[in-house]
Amino acid sequence: MKIYTKSILPLGFKASGISSGIKKSGKLDLALFFSETPATAACVFTANSIKAAPVILSKGYLRSNYYFQAIIANSGNANCFTGRQGLKDAQLTSKFLADALGLKEKEVLVASTGIIAKKLPVDKIKLGIPGLIKQLSREGINQAEKAIMTTDTFTKKISVKFSLGPKTVTICGIAKGAGMIAPNMATLLSFIFTDAKITRQALNQALKVSVRNSFNCITVDGCMSTNDAVMLLANGAAQNALVSGGKNLDLFIRVLSLVCLELAKMVVKDAEGASKFIRIKVSSAKNYNQAKAAALSIANSNLVKTAIYGQNPNFGRIAAAIGASGAGVEEKDLKIKVSSLKKKEIEIEVELNQGKANAVIYTSDLTPEYVKINAEYN
Amino acid sequence: MKIYTKSILPLGFKASGISSGIKKSGKLDLALFFSETPATAACVFTANSIKAAPVILSKGYLRSNYYFQAIIANSGNANCFTGRQGLKDAQLTSKFLADALGLKEKEVLVASTGIIAKKLPVDKIKLGIPGLIKQLSREGINQAEKAIMTTDTFTKKISVKFSLGPKTVTICGIAKGAGMIAPNMATLLSFIFTDAKITRQALNQALKVSVRNSFNCITVDGCMSTNDAVMLLANGAAQNALVSGGKNLDLFIRVLSLVCLELAKMVVKDAEGASKFIRIKVSSAKNYNQAKAAALSIANSNLVKTAIYGQNPNFGRIAAAIGASGAGVEEKDLKIKVSSLKKKEIEIEVELNQGKANAVIYTSDLTPEYVKINAEYN
Repeated sequence: MKIYTKSILPLGFKASGISSGIKKSGKLDLALFFSETPATAACVFTANSIKAAPVILSKGYLRSNYYFQAIIANSGNANCFTGRQGLKDAQLTSKFLADALGLKEKEVLVASTGIIAKKLPVDKIKLGIPGLIKQLSREGINQAEKAIMTTDTFTKKISVKFSLGPKTVTICGIAKGAGMIAPNMATLLSFIFTDAKITRQALNQALKVSVRNSFNCITVDGCMSTNDAVMLLANGAAQNALVSGGKNLDLFIRVLSLVCLELAKMVVKDAEGASKFIRIKVSSAKNYNQAKAAALSIANSNLVKTAIYGQNPNFGRIAAAIGASGAGVEEKDLKIKVSSLKKKEIEIEVELNQGKANAVIYTSDLTPEYVKINAEYN
Repeated sequence: MKIYTKSILPLGFKASGISSGIKKSGKLDLALFFSETPATAACVFTANSIKAAPVILSKGYLRSNYYFQAIIANSGNANCFTGRQGLKDAQLTSKFLADALGLKEKEVLVASTGIIAKKLPVDKIKLGIPGLIKQLSREGINQAEKAIMTTDTFTKKISVKFSLGPKTVTICGIAKGAGMIAPNMATLLSFIFTDAKITRQALNQALKVSVRNSFNCITVDGCMSTNDAVMLLANGAAQNALVSGGKNLDLFIRVLSLVCLELAKMVVKDAEGASKFIRIKVSSAKNYNQAKAAALSIANSNLVKTAIYGQNPNFGRIAAAIGASGAGVEEKDLKIKVSSLKKKEIEIEVELNQGKANAVIYTSDLTPEYVKINAEYN
């Protein structure tokens, strides 16, 4: 297995990114991901009951269709809380692209991120599509990964090459994050591409497991976004023996989990205003849910997060957060260890002494800068 | 009914507040509340499973004892996460005071607030007790209400006089708040005194109802404290006909609810670093729990709170918070109204269009100042 901290598109994929004018700054804001042959898709979306139009649309396409060839994603506008008009605009986006590529609408997945409750400027997207298609290339991924950024300060990408039998398979993932990050995802978009040949069922299972242990284990501000989506396309171009279960699926899941976890950690490291990266491990819990609830309660405690920002070790606040998690833990059971707060990466280790389950959650500190960024956004 | 924005102790009560040296600043830090005759007590404590020693001790006393004559409260040290030593120190506090007043230990309730996980300096409390008792007076409440403050910037107090039959009854309440404020209470101490003659059962019922609609409807940072306590003493000195139910209990509950709600609002207004006071009303919900969950999710959303700090109306963040509350609301059902963000008091009104239930939650904005206060605390 070889890990690259850059984007290397798997066989048969191309991408591009342009500035369509959605962002007033003139920065890149429209991305296209294209598979030369029909690809199997697996997606995980936000658990928020208020879902953005592109999420509703893409979910519908996934119900009625098995193969996809393109994902179009814009930043600068989330097309959320935009009512019927928003749904129509998301559908038009897929239609414009499908028409230009000779595909069906429902073969095009759509994603948006940015400001909520503003009409999506579909006219700008329509005008941008010819340029977007023209610039499709294997290197275009470098523009595409910029075109999905909002308040992100760096692009998030990782590629892994590994052997499946005699064939080399690539998984390449990119992501955007920054704020509104909570388990069950975030203002988080991630697009993952692989040339592995794998059944739809196995692909879905692999993504579910990988997201649970990565994107769903990070929190920046406890705010669950309306637009979160992880979209995974597998086009089979590596011509490996079809993966449907067994050891090969285990290996695929291991690599996909690594890709998702590294992307998730990058999202936390680039959290709005963050000055610290915090890993919280809760161990010896009764079960995973108890461990995760306790870890999340610590991770989402503004008092813990400000204490860490202030490099002010405050075990009491950690204990209070655990107690508030509903974990039913008593003081005498608790063991808390915190690494030096002077470093950029902090470890909080908690033992509940109730059983054998563990959970790990990643988060950032809460800084005056976070407040400023989110007070001034718009 | 007459409402006073000051402390007027009911008949038969005295109080005092001194500086015992727990706070290094030399500010008042030890308070005593005394009833000349045995009083019936009702208390509500934190729902956090990690409970401070004085909470554990007082809960125990309330189980084994019906009448109380004193409450001793200190600020500057929460005596929480202090293990067996903490429990011993809380007990010693009640013992020292009981000995000096000729009472039994279990007739003295104990409360603490301040820094967590530091040993309570009981020696200082012991040395302070003679002065504390010497200064007991009706006006001493003005010192006592200062002695329970931590990061509070003003004292919180209210008194109401009302008629129960031919008798005038007084309810006087004081509180401290500031940070770690979440439903199911807060780093919140409140002491309420009344000369009403009322059964223990009725008193408990009255406090439960009043706290549910007041202290449990406020949130500053979603952090649930380990020390929260509302303690209510009723000594019967007004000599009204015993209240045990019916219209007189309804009236008593109405007044007590008013006292608790006004104190709770003062706590929010004095929230750490707050620049705005926010009232969130969710209406036309299926039931109260759904309405409250949605209102709380808005109130605890850092993104909503920073947007309000920035006077940046962002309906999408409010919608996202409602969707994340698990309320199962869809976009088309939602109606959101926000008053001018330029004012100090903000109203957020949300209609879910699912039923007839309402809930109101009070909160504050999230400011760089909150982060600074909590980063530098200690």
